[in-house]
Amino acid sequence: MGTSTRTLNIGIIGFGPFAQFLAKTMTKQGHFIRATSRSDHSGHPAVHFYRNMEEFIGLEHDVILICTSIVSISDVVKSIPFHCLKKPVLFADVLSVKEHPRQLLLQEVPEDSDLVCTHPMFGPESGKDGWKNLPFMYERVRVRNETLCSSFLAIFEHEGCKMLEMSCEEHDRLASQSQFLTHTIGRILSEMEVTHTPIDTKGFEKLVQVKESTTRDSFDLYSGLFIHNRFAKQQLKNLESALQRVKVTLETTMDKQDGHKCEN
Amino acid sequence: MGTSTRTLNIGIIGFGPFAQFLAKTMTKQGHFIRATSRSDHSGHPAVHFYRNMEEFIGLEHDVILICTSIVSISDVVKSIPFHCLKKPVLFADVLSVKEHPRQLLLQEVPEDSDLVCTHPMFGPESGKDGWKNLPFMYERVRVRNETLCSSFLAIFEHEGCKMLEMSCEEHDRLASQSQFLTHTIGRILSEMEVTHTPIDTKGFEKLVQVKESTTRDSFDLYSGLFIHNRFAKQQLKNLESALQRVKVTLETTMDKQDGHKCEN
Ligand SMILES: NC(=O)c1ccc[n+]([C@@H]2O[C@H](COP(=O)([O-])OP(=O)(O)OC[C@H]3O[C@@H](n4cnc5c(N)ncnc54)[C@H](OP(=O)(O)O)[C@@H]3O)[C@@H](O)[C@H]2O)c1
Ligand SMILES: NC(=O)c1ccc[n+]([C@@H]2O[C@H](COP(=O)([O-])OP(=O)(O)OC[C@H]3O[C@@H](n4cnc5c(N)ncnc54)[C@H](OP(=O)(O)O)[C@@H]3O)[C@@H](O)[C@H]2O)c1
Repeated sequence: MGTSTRTLNIGIIGFGPFAQFLAKTMTKQGHFIRATSRSDHSGHPAVHFYRNMEEFIGLEHDVILICTSIVSISDVVKSIPFHCLKKPVLFADVLSVKEHPRQLLLQEVPEDSDLVCTHPMFGPESGKDGWKNLPFMYERVRVRNETLCSSFLAIFEHEGCKMLEMSCEEHDRLASQSQFLTHTIGRILSEMEVTHTPIDTKGFEKLVQVKESTTRDSFDLYSGLFIHNRFAKQQLKNLESALQRVKVTLETTMDKQDGHKCEN
Repeated sequence: MGTSTRTLNIGIIGFGPFAQFLAKTMTKQGHFIRATSRSDHSGHPAVHFYRNMEEFIGLEHDVILICTSIVSISDVVKSIPFHCLKKPVLFADVLSVKEHPRQLLLQEVPEDSDLVCTHPMFGPESGKDGWKNLPFMYERVRVRNETLCSSFLAIFEHEGCKMLEMSCEEHDRLASQSQFLTHTIGRILSEMEVTHTPIDTKGFEKLVQVKESTTRDSFDLYSGLFIHNRFAKQQLKNLESALQRVKVTLETTMDKQDGHKCEN
């Protein structure tokens, strides 16, 4: 078997909706998946679930994949009993913000283990018909075992992802302008309770889709995009001031029309 | 030839992008199109263009279709030399707001002419591959010549539009929640200069499409949606306050996380 199709023992920490979605494809590719999480997911048909973190960490892993929520990763990583590791492994994460886990993992993960920070830019909804051409961002933060890291990235390559090597900082800058903004607009539309009308335009249909897909993700995910991406606050300010500018332009135009009417 | 496929003499007032788009399909269906407008469009290959409004109104029309901008319709209709009409006709409009032209036309159009107010809920972009299943809203405001009105509506029926009979008031209420909101978000995204990134999610791609399609329409069209739809102001307020609520929720969640960290 070539390097890139090597079967991996992957241990997942945090077995929520996104981890379960990833595990399906990883299992299909023949990888061996074990998981641990805060809640009990031991009923899951395809993975071996461990309630006990020490026991889990003591198993033979090639990769330990961190899939917890953004807001809980700090507590979760700090509670990992690294001394129970049998051998150096590749630590990877899939959080939707990147500078935060990068810094945390560099600080907490034992020096002899490798690190790759990743963000698959899709989820259970947008990736439900396969991952072809969907962007997969990664930074090889600390990689000595190139073969192992390549084997892990090959999981996404083989599904046809658009592989994008990029710094975590660059990711967070771009994602604040795109993904965070999208989720914010989705949450605003949800607050407004927007819903289909009999006279929907194509554009409005797209907004309803954005509302539905973003609010399907947990509020933890959304708040994490804000709290742990240092570029997000500025984007929220930009959104507010753009709305104010649009409003002022509309009001000025209306005043001018009124003035024009009065003159006639 | 059955009633519904009768060939009509259609006179268009206001020959901008949307009128030209409509004229293409009407000509294809075999109708005879003449037009007048503020600017000179006499080079147009498929329609007979008249620079002189009196001459234009004095021609034999079945339908006079008003396609000017929302903000100019009042001036345009008030300047129509109705006394030059050869016979009673069907006046129709396609403005993206409906109470405003309805009231104006009821006031200005001679009592013996009929009136139908319509809004094709699509444009040159969303309707470029045909009009099948695209919503077409109309109110039969003052119709005595049923045959003529049906022949006019048949133009849209034959292309497969979803025909929706609805009051102009109901249209404006619904359109403020859908189309006006969509255009406002498009204009906000344009103010923010959002643009594709290498790591676009599917949701963000939809927002970029909304930005591109709404800003392709004139600013006159957008400001008309606000100024002449009495429900739009409330929607803009709703958007502002929804943004504030989302912001406060994010900030409160962040403060709680910070507080929690300090306790540890
Ligand atoms: N959903 C997506 O489309 C998507 C796409 C790309 C990346 N991601 C990233 O993938 C990760 C998981 O996302 P998700 O959609 O599954 O939902 P999420 O709400 O972001 O995270 C849920 C996961 O976090 C764990 N968790 C939450 N609070 C915890 C706590 N206090 N202590 C320990 N564990 C805790 C949950 O454990 P239990 O299940 O055991 O309760 C579950 O495994 C996130 O970092 C997210 O940013 C998600
Ligand atoms: N675009 C769409 O997708 C769409 C869809 C449904 C309904 N509509 C409605 O269709 C109408 C036309 O829309 P549009 O997209 O073509 O662009 P628009 O900017 O809304 O209107 C352009 C038209 O208005 C005329 N006009 C503008 N200012 C005028 C003035 N001061 N005096 C006289 N005429 C004036 C222009 O005449 P000249 O060309 O001669 O300068 C042109 O015919 C609008 O009422 C709009 O709400 C548009």
